[in-house]
Amino acid sequence: MAHVDIPPGTPPGTPGLMMYRQDTGGPLSQLAEVLLREENSLSRSERELIAAYVSYLNECYFCWQTHRQMSVQQDEGADLARLESLIDDFDGAPLKPKLRALLVIAGQVTISGRSVTTELVASAKDAGATDAEIHDTVLISAAFCMYNRYCDGLAVLVPQDPTAYVGMAQHIISGGYSMCAKGH
Amino acid sequence: MAHVDIPPGTPPGTPGLMMYRQDTGGPLSQLAEVLLREENSLSRSERELIAAYVSYLNECYFCWQTHRQMSVQQDEGADLARLESLIDDFDGAPLKPKLRALLVIAGQVTISGRSVTTELVASAKDAGATDAEIHDTVLISAAFCMYNRYCDGLAVLVPQDPTAYVGMAQHIISGGYSMCAKGH
Repeated sequence: MAHVDIPPGTPPGTPGLMMYRQDTGGPLSQLAEVLLREENSLSRSERELIAAYVSYLNECYFCWQTHRQMSVQQDEGADLARLESLIDDFDGAPLKPKLRALLVIAGQVTISGRSVTTELVASAKDAGATDAEIHDTVLISAAFCMYNRYCDGLAVLVPQDPTAYVGMAQHIISGGYSMCAKGH
Repeated sequence: MAHVDIPPGTPPGTPGLMMYRQDTGGPLSQLAEVLLREENSLSRSERELIAAYVSYLNECYFCWQTHRQMSVQQDEGADLARLESLIDDFDGAPLKPKLRALLVIAGQVTISGRSVTTELVASAKDAGATDAEIHDTVLISAAFCMYNRYCDGLAVLVPQDPTAYVGMAQHIISGGYSMCAKGH
């Protein structure tokens, strides 16, 4: 049972919280929309992969399941096995050097902002990352340190069946994150 | 030096980042405006105290200095000594039971959302906290787990003199957080 009295019929996870308190749901969903869907030199699938990886590290089952679906469904060449390999064997996972370097930075942000060293940033730039990509990687990771804590900190309903997340991701891909705060 | 190329003259800390990337600065500043300044049964000073306490726990000097000023300057009876006592001796600090219980929840959120137990929520409710106050406490703490990592993760300019934060807080109190993303 959730820690606060969420009305029956509210969607599960963070989208349900965005509906529960729409005043904060507006900027929360708008932030996800800009960071994960708007024009960017990182593909939608790459940005969702960063979000999924951070959510895995933070042990937030809802966000991990949702965003790995968002990443896989928006990349023709991707499959869930690639995401699993990232978790099981980061060093051996088939990743482009730039994305790997950005994921390392994202992982450090989950520990603390101060864990992002000049050396890690230099490695990402050597692998071709731009300032904008480094900025967005830090902010995506920081934002999921928020969304993950928001979802789990209120103990909202979280579907345990991974297949439940397939349709949820399809729905967000077609309608965008902003619809979350509006409830349709 | 910051990890990304921030133009000279940009304000320090998180407000500077909101100007640097205004597309994300908009929802980030709007979230702070709603959570910390709009109508709420928790006073502005109480909500800023939660933000300051979380920033202290996350060791984010910029946000800790900014939000302790925001808390003190918006409460006639408050002084910086009260905030210092909270840090030095949480159990002995002069806090109302409800605010103390909410601060305990906020502190747990910095570790993980899953650290917020049913027992801690029940204690807060026994001390008079409403569902809305518990929701907002969790989200304020989660949001500062983001802002703190965003600020430190990009190694932006952070004034080391505590007196530099007095005027910054006065400026936000008079103009609101939304001005941060607009740069005036």
